[in-house]
Amino acid sequence: MSPAPVVSSALTFERPLVTVDVVIFSLVDEQLCVLLVRRPEGEHEPFPGRWALPGGFVDVHRDASLLACAERKLREKTGVVAPYLEQLGSWGDARRDPRGWSATHAYFALIAQPAISADSGTVTEWVACDQALRRRLAFDHHTLLGAAIDRLRGKVEYTSLPAFLLPEPFTLPQLQRIYEVVLGRPLDKSAFRKRMLDADFLVEAGTLAREQGRPAVGYRLRDREQATLFPRTFKPAE
Amino acid sequence: MSPAPVVSSALTFERPLVTVDVVIFSLVDEQLCVLLVRRPEGEHEPFPGRWALPGGFVDVHRDASLLACAERKLREKTGVVAPYLEQLGSWGDARRDPRGWSATHAYFALIAQPAISADSGTVTEWVACDQALRRRLAFDHHTLLGAAIDRLRGKVEYTSLPAFLLPEPFTLPQLQRIYEVVLGRPLDKSAFRKRMLDADFLVEAGTLAREQGRPAVGYRLRDREQATLFPRTFKPAE
Repeated sequence: MSPAPVVSSALTFERPLVTVDVVIFSLVDEQLCVLLVRRPEGEHEPFPGRWALPGGFVDVHRDASLLACAERKLREKTGVVAPYLEQLGSWGDARRDPRGWSATHAYFALIAQPAISADSGTVTEWVACDQALRRRLAFDHHTLLGAAIDRLRGKVEYTSLPAFLLPEPFTLPQLQRIYEVVLGRPLDKSAFRKRMLDADFLVEAGTLAREQGRPAVGYRLRDREQATLFPRTFKPAE
Repeated sequence: MSPAPVVSSALTFERPLVTVDVVIFSLVDEQLCVLLVRRPEGEHEPFPGRWALPGGFVDVHRDASLLACAERKLREKTGVVAPYLEQLGSWGDARRDPRGWSATHAYFALIAQPAISADSGTVTEWVACDQALRRRLAFDHHTLLGAAIDRLRGKVEYTSLPAFLLPEPFTLPQLQRIYEVVLGRPLDKSAFRKRMLDADFLVEAGTLAREQGRPAVGYRLRDREQATLFPRTFKPAE
């Protein structure tokens, strides 16, 4: 099905640098956090020592696709395989990287365990989103991070996305707490419970002991590949 | 503010090809259409003679950014400047282009006049979206086109986007007709009228003579840069 290779002598023009950056979200101490990495020091390094999003150049010999490249970056930094991963957008211009015309493909990931791979060889830190936005980040990563937070908060209004931030099995009160953390406001308990169960994206997974009160029903996601869309948002109708 | 240029000797690895493709929508004979261009014939050309979306390589010496590159492609093919232009996503892998690892940044544009620039030097055609999806398009352009149509139809449910397909000034019945064409179903007249006027994105622009009946109020968009979001979708509440 794939066409025969074509070798063209007309492709000798200058090509942009191509990178993939990943905004990796997780929950640490009930705060929405993002993984930052410290840029290497060095005379020829752009933004030496600054905090940045994990990412790097596409390796045309190792990465079969942009998504595969994003999965590799995520695996190298956190050791996590196959979490929730979604394309955020691309940013490219002549000035964002001092090394030359550069285009980055940004992804955002949600992971349930705020892990950091021990063998990554770089200094990494989980930083609360609000604090991360106040740091002087390398490149245009402040813009990328802001766009990722906006996308996540927007989607939380009408999808099951926050569930990907919880280790399974989890209880409905735990799930409600995650929604409240990401939305930044409290939700009505019985309306939340009805919405979650009506949306039919949870599967019962035994009972879980709780610190106080009766054991609670545990749940896991029916599908860990994609989020479920709700028919209405959490926002009150205007 | 911009960092001093950094020359790194470590950037000698192979870089992907970087392109921008634009899905340009307009209305022709009350049908939602997309602009296709015919790929050049030639021994070294990929997909010679096939229909494709307009696009091409980023020129690092001419294009200040990805958006500027998309605007240039649009201007070259249609002569249109500054229409509605939105990033759709990026697609990149080792196999989509027989010339090598390639990543494309896709945009979609809405224009009010289905123009084709006379001096573009390529064969171009406005094709109804449903028909365009049935053609064997070059590269992965069938996927890009499908994604653009899905995005447009999805956004029409809750935004003022279809208004960008109309030359100004336009009447409310004309606007309703565009919504119905893109959505593929009829809408209630008085509910449509109320929603449009409540959303406050239209400005009165005199009266327009109609083929039959009284003259109608003409409108133009308050803001031609971005679409207005409606608080509710057209879909009936579930």
